[in-house]
Amino acid sequence: MTDRSLIYLDNNATTRPYPEVVELMAQQFRETYGNPGSRHAAGRPPRIVLEEARESTAAVLGAKPSEIVFTSGGTEATNLAVFGLTGATPGSAAVGTRRTIALTAGEHPATMEACRHLEQSGWSLVTLDVDEEGRLREDRFDRLPWDRLRLVTVILAHNETGVVQGVAALSERCRREGVPLHLDAVQAVGKIPVHFGELGATTLALGAHKFHGPRGVGALLVRDGVKLAPWLFGGHQESGRRPGTEPVALIAGMAQALQLWEANRRDRTPRIRALRDRLEAALSQCCPPVVLNGSREH
Amino acid sequence: MTDRSLIYLDNNATTRPYPEVVELMAQQFRETYGNPGSRHAAGRPPRIVLEEARESTAAVLGAKPSEIVFTSGGTEATNLAVFGLTGATPGSAAVGTRRTIALTAGEHPATMEACRHLEQSGWSLVTLDVDEEGRLREDRFDRLPWDRLRLVTVILAHNETGVVQGVAALSERCRREGVPLHLDAVQAVGKIPVHFGELGATTLALGAHKFHGPRGVGALLVRDGVKLAPWLFGGHQESGRRPGTEPVALIAGMAQALQLWEANRRDRTPRIRALRDRLEAALSQCCPPVVLNGSREH
Repeated sequence: MTDRSLIYLDNNATTRPYPEVVELMAQQFRETYGNPGSRHAAGRPPRIVLEEARESTAAVLGAKPSEIVFTSGGTEATNLAVFGLTGATPGSAAVGTRRTIALTAGEHPATMEACRHLEQSGWSLVTLDVDEEGRLREDRFDRLPWDRLRLVTVILAHNETGVVQGVAALSERCRREGVPLHLDAVQAVGKIPVHFGELGATTLALGAHKFHGPRGVGALLVRDGVKLAPWLFGGHQESGRRPGTEPVALIAGMAQALQLWEANRRDRTPRIRALRDRLEAALSQCCPPVVLNGSREH
Repeated sequence: MTDRSLIYLDNNATTRPYPEVVELMAQQFRETYGNPGSRHAAGRPPRIVLEEARESTAAVLGAKPSEIVFTSGGTEATNLAVFGLTGATPGSAAVGTRRTIALTAGEHPATMEACRHLEQSGWSLVTLDVDEEGRLREDRFDRLPWDRLRLVTVILAHNETGVVQGVAALSERCRREGVPLHLDAVQAVGKIPVHFGELGATTLALGAHKFHGPRGVGALLVRDGVKLAPWLFGGHQESGRRPGTEPVALIAGMAQALQLWEANRRDRTPRIRALRDRLEAALSQCCPPVVLNGSREH
């Protein structure tokens, strides 16, 4: 990847970490190597770094620090949401009559495969209708079997088309019906403003390597007071919701990438939009017929 | 942690990454940032790094490259083993009459809590007897309910006492009885030679941050031909056994830490043993009564 003529356009697959993020992580690996769970002196510096990262991540995403659960990435965050919210713990069939999940046909494999696994275990899946641009059809919400729904899960920004969902009406309806709403925001965070509180979702998944942070870390935002069924077992880290010694360097790197995005987005977003429009126009002109999958407005 | 007077003795909690490992990871984050799952040119360099790390990890641990499943750490590797080998997938009660797990009373919380969760779901746990040093009592193996056992799981080197188990007899017995054997080697790898093939276990868990590698990465070794029930869902990475974009920089860092240990262990092990003996002797002399928990020989 030292080829200077390469123009890397696959930022929806993964991004190159910011140089500042790489430098910060190297410093953390070198200096703040203690275990944040240790009660002795070496545990304090990493604990401070961890909690500062939690606070700054929460601030950028419109969440409370207590609502952040750090994970190994978007896939794990999504699995934790699907199994944690449905009560589908390993080795035990979930109880209750609500055993239906509503999702769009275009969910990422992490969501889709987790839900399909539950389907094989006797759950039902129903599809949320979308229009020709891939956006939710709010006029079809009444057709959903609300009294049987245990979970609604929606990809907030699509990993292939880039289409951004409006979820205000869905979120309001889910709250009224008492059904948890999970948002897969892995392709949204670090690209468009995401405010957990305003979105009104129950949980929200993100992964650092989609916004110039490191691979191997992500987070699930969990609204305060929501109980997740346990799915990964071990130590008491992350308030008992995600065991395992915390990868503090990666978490600090993710927090910094998010802060850098937040600091630069007013310049960055119009620049990327203009580049996208120029690419689309040039492609349409040079190599017709070109079909745009997705939505021009959203 | 810039205090030069600090002598960090808590390497069983976590270790400081080798400077070479930190440097290599920074380089990988900067240069080999493509997604190894991408079919375009940017996917090739990280794919090569990933497979070289797999080969060198396998070589040090006496395993085949195909037997390595990279995970986010020891806790995830252990959970994958316990749920994958017992068939306890999320949301579905496992079938069959073998619903008993044998384990020692001193397993790490990752193993213990995963097994206790299954106990709450109707499984039975039986304890493997140990002697006063914490070592397995082979003369008690006949008392185990072999026809009901679905899994035997043992901590290879104890995270508190440092006691190393001899598992040759147990491994041989498990093979004869057709019961999978999982070894929690999180505290063994990078401290004593571990040869997966010779140990004869079905699966073996390790975590990089215990041997001067980074936090946020580990591996489960899975003997060729063994089928793990799925527990984490998403993409097809790691031959379908662990989805999620691979954290190539961390995996390369873990592989290098393991290689550094292997290259230095002939000098390192006697030096650390001598330091330990000196510490023990000084403590015994200065502050009696001192009781050694564990085994002097093992």
